[in-house]
Amino acid sequence: MLRTHTCGELRLQDVNKTVTLCGWVQRIRDKGSLIWIDLRDRYGLTQLMIEENSSAEQIVLTARQLGREFVVKAVGTVIERVSKNNKIDTGDIEIKVSELEILNPAKTPPFVIEDETDGGDDLRMRYRYLDLRRPIVRQSLELRHRMAKATRDYMDSQGFLEVETPVLIKSTPEGARDFVVPSRLHAGEFYALPQSPQTFKQLLMVSGFDRYFQIVKCFRDEDLRADRQPEFTQIDCEMSFVNQEDILNTFEGLVKHLFKTIKGIEFGQFPRMTYADAMKYYGSDKPDTRFDMQFVEITDLAKGKGFKVFDEAEIVVGINAKGCAEYTRKQLDELTEFVKKPQIGAKGLIYVRLSDEGIKSSVDKFYSAEQLSEWAGYFKAEKGDLLLILAGETDKTRKQLNELRLEMGTRLGLRDKNVFKPLWVLDFPLLEWDEESGRYHAMHHPFTSPKPEDIGKLHSRPGEVRANAYDMVINGVEVGGGSIRIHDRTLQSTMFRLLGFSDEQAKAQFGFLMDAFEFGAPPHGGIAFGFDRLCSLFGGADSIRDFIAFPKNNAGRDVMIDSPSTISEEQLKELHIKVDAN
Amino acid sequence: MLRTHTCGELRLQDVNKTVTLCGWVQRIRDKGSLIWIDLRDRYGLTQLMIEENSSAEQIVLTARQLGREFVVKAVGTVIERVSKNNKIDTGDIEIKVSELEILNPAKTPPFVIEDETDGGDDLRMRYRYLDLRRPIVRQSLELRHRMAKATRDYMDSQGFLEVETPVLIKSTPEGARDFVVPSRLHAGEFYALPQSPQTFKQLLMVSGFDRYFQIVKCFRDEDLRADRQPEFTQIDCEMSFVNQEDILNTFEGLVKHLFKTIKGIEFGQFPRMTYADAMKYYGSDKPDTRFDMQFVEITDLAKGKGFKVFDEAEIVVGINAKGCAEYTRKQLDELTEFVKKPQIGAKGLIYVRLSDEGIKSSVDKFYSAEQLSEWAGYFKAEKGDLLLILAGETDKTRKQLNELRLEMGTRLGLRDKNVFKPLWVLDFPLLEWDEESGRYHAMHHPFTSPKPEDIGKLHSRPGEVRANAYDMVINGVEVGGGSIRIHDRTLQSTMFRLLGFSDEQAKAQFGFLMDAFEFGAPPHGGIAFGFDRLCSLFGGADSIRDFIAFPKNNAGRDVMIDSPSTISEEQLKELHIKVDAN
Repeated sequence: MLRTHTCGELRLQDVNKTVTLCGWVQRIRDKGSLIWIDLRDRYGLTQLMIEENSSAEQIVLTARQLGREFVVKAVGTVIERVSKNNKIDTGDIEIKVSELEILNPAKTPPFVIEDETDGGDDLRMRYRYLDLRRPIVRQSLELRHRMAKATRDYMDSQGFLEVETPVLIKSTPEGARDFVVPSRLHAGEFYALPQSPQTFKQLLMVSGFDRYFQIVKCFRDEDLRADRQPEFTQIDCEMSFVNQEDILNTFEGLVKHLFKTIKGIEFGQFPRMTYADAMKYYGSDKPDTRFDMQFVEITDLAKGKGFKVFDEAEIVVGINAKGCAEYTRKQLDELTEFVKKPQIGAKGLIYVRLSDEGIKSSVDKFYSAEQLSEWAGYFKAEKGDLLLILAGETDKTRKQLNELRLEMGTRLGLRDKNVFKPLWVLDFPLLEWDEESGRYHAMHHPFTSPKPEDIGKLHSRPGEVRANAYDMVINGVEVGGGSIRIHDRTLQSTMFRLLGFSDEQAKAQFGFLMDAFEFGAPPHGGIAFGFDRLCSLFGGADSIRDFIAFPKNNAGRDVMIDSPSTISEEQLKELHIKVDAN
Repeated sequence: MLRTHTCGELRLQDVNKTVTLCGWVQRIRDKGSLIWIDLRDRYGLTQLMIEENSSAEQIVLTARQLGREFVVKAVGTVIERVSKNNKIDTGDIEIKVSELEILNPAKTPPFVIEDETDGGDDLRMRYRYLDLRRPIVRQSLELRHRMAKATRDYMDSQGFLEVETPVLIKSTPEGARDFVVPSRLHAGEFYALPQSPQTFKQLLMVSGFDRYFQIVKCFRDEDLRADRQPEFTQIDCEMSFVNQEDILNTFEGLVKHLFKTIKGIEFGQFPRMTYADAMKYYGSDKPDTRFDMQFVEITDLAKGKGFKVFDEAEIVVGINAKGCAEYTRKQLDELTEFVKKPQIGAKGLIYVRLSDEGIKSSVDKFYSAEQLSEWAGYFKAEKGDLLLILAGETDKTRKQLNELRLEMGTRLGLRDKNVFKPLWVLDFPLLEWDEESGRYHAMHHPFTSPKPEDIGKLHSRPGEVRANAYDMVINGVEVGGGSIRIHDRTLQSTMFRLLGFSDEQAKAQFGFLMDAFEFGAPPHGGIAFGFDRLCSLFGGADSIRDFIAFPKNNAGRDVMIDSPSTISEEQLKELHIKVDAN
């Protein structure tokens, strides 16, 4: 090795040792008679010291050529520092340099290589290799490494085999858009990149692999929203001869193991909530349970008193913002503007304050103090509280109130990134109606099993059929989801028909899976976790961007390598395709 | 869980326990009064027993409906077997069945689900999910899981971080053909799938990641030869602040760890051989050192005695096939035919036998017994040995003799799959001349560093420049290869020019890497192992096919899912491409 130690390991007990360090120049302080250099590597920072009088002239000359981010090799003696720096692990010592070599000079980087940087997003992405030098970004990727290692250790200990499934597969029209890969050997034909290894992991169950997992790249060619990536990573899992309870326990075990080994946090059993309750009490299938503020419905109470907005509403529902009775008119106006934003879409916001002066609301014209007090009872509200109430069509109103609840949670500081509240959401509907296409879509995917007790309703009331499907939610983020699968060919055919597949389409796309079901498929189910999201959650970050080494921007472009890019006519010809820019 | 135990875990000490097993019906023996069923899962086989008289009628009826590969659940009592079966771990016990449920029936599989199967390659690939049930195939993938786990454990223990690099990257004309992915959001532009994460891992070194690895899918759109796959897996590694010696030691450590944990075999230091010696003594840069039979050159000795074949040859070189003096005329003719095969291309084969009757050769007309004895001395040959000699142009003749040496090794049983002989081959040439394009190609890749002492020859005698490049070879298979990289922008530019890149081409393709070298690139190097091949070597198999769960056939086609396939006009239009079948 070109070094004897890293820049993070020397301590007081190493004093008097002769050491060789390699790293990047983080900072230089030239005081004339003394030059200090902070040398950085992945492991830490160590201070180099050069004395103008007692160090060789060549060393001083070399030191004065150095600039930020130069790569150097320094030989020297470990000495105790006069003024210790307790902010860094090596802060008790410094290196009195006896040899100094520039391994590679550096141009001045376009932004500061520190946690707080002056580089904007575009510049940081263009020079991602410099951005990755910032400790905060490097630590995010170190966390990701540890998360992946801990996941594999746990899964291995539970008898799961990691099996690699193919990346070049077949395009299927269901779900999001596929990325495709033209075949050179088979003119006019294409591979597709997997949106998930779903069918392959089910085939592995048919093969008797019993317990499968994989940390695997998946691909979706979607219009990119903020914080979506065209390629993303899943912890993909499947088990045989299990019921839903076994899956919940096994993967609750995984996430507990991760919290314990990575964050040092121990959990009891995760709470469970039905989809119906999640929608009723939080207006979301991924409730943030770091704070209460559950929905309270006062529809019956509020209707029929002459207030048209409520009288015409399907639901009147609100939350109790504890301790917010003294909100100013301005603050209340802000909240009204918030719920009226086009992406939320409420028509207005009703409030009831329980202040020292008594109960006051924006609907005093229609409701007496006694009536409002009765509402307050439903909300378990006390003096000092503020009720915020929305009304309208049930599903829409709940979604709007969910946004308001999250906003209030944020305003009240109830969404601490260092607090983690996991839960399971269960009993999802099997199907959801799609207005646009006028047919049912699979809420999870077409391989999800209906609950046996609901199978009778598949044809008569398909919208009411619940699935053996479950999501794991932490802090309002869906970190994983899965289901017990169909393992019966007939039921699978029924599902495809319900979803509007012709038998020919089903056979062309998924014939191999339905064939497989005829050769002895075991009962099975599984789950997939969004690994990028799980890492960012553990890292206390809002964005997944810094938990991916080389992410693409919101236009799906890698601005560092400038991809995608044009390819040669020769390549196109070999692949039997032409660009058709219309 | 639907079961209390697996089919591999019950033993004598479990006798009298009530257990529930799930699995596949491997075999049924119906003796009228007694029915035995072998139940199989991933973990083993357990015998179920049903007595016509003492079991419930329904159980007997159900048992008689069963066929091969039915999925069943059986409840019963563990009892000691009368006649033990020591071929299976559960052979001391059987289950007296008290409940029997068919979880899923099965059609008769198209081939036998045993290690020795009657299914041909095509049928097995089409029904890969059934092929994967065969214990030999499942065990190969279990081995692969253990290899990956042990690799990650070792790399993690050595401070390497696993970092995922992108799959959607940029097409580069160097090397093999890229698979490309048309972009929907950027009309006329394409991503490419990586042939290796080479540039990204070097950028991670520039970023200060210090020690990187990844078990990663790579892609090459090549004309497929037997046992090549369009997608394959590498153990990809890179380190900073190291010289070649550090890399050899680190990754020798990895492979030793794998041999120890997976095979229970311990190794001392791996032998090292220069590329020049490998070619001189084995005619190959990946010599199979499970047996000696090194090449012996007798060019000077053999020339000038009137034998035209030798006189006109650049080299006369042979091997000593020990103990083969009694080879029959037929056997010798076979060897002659072997070396004359078009893919080997020798013109003929000269032999010298050292039999009881004295020394005899196919060139007795030109050489006296004394002269032949002198040759034999060079070969350290003894009575009973057979010398096999080829002559011609040096490189070609060595390659031909390599094939003959391997053939003799096979014939003599010297290539035992349970014997492992690893070695390092070092000092590869930096460049190789390509007759077709009339220019030099990078032997490893364009980022490989020339040996410092040879840099002076880069322009004057480029063909003689050696690289800091190394391959790990085991049993004649190149399992890994790598190099110390260039980390200097100027030297990298020189290399691109030598390889025929214009400065514009170099900048367009690799500008981001050369730019990165200007911002403080550390000295670095790395290696990549072919993971599929390494697994098949450890598994004692000739083919990588069964170490990949869902391989493609030799035409790059997945016959199970029928991919590649056509895609819809709508998809093509969205991707801004047209099929151009000419």
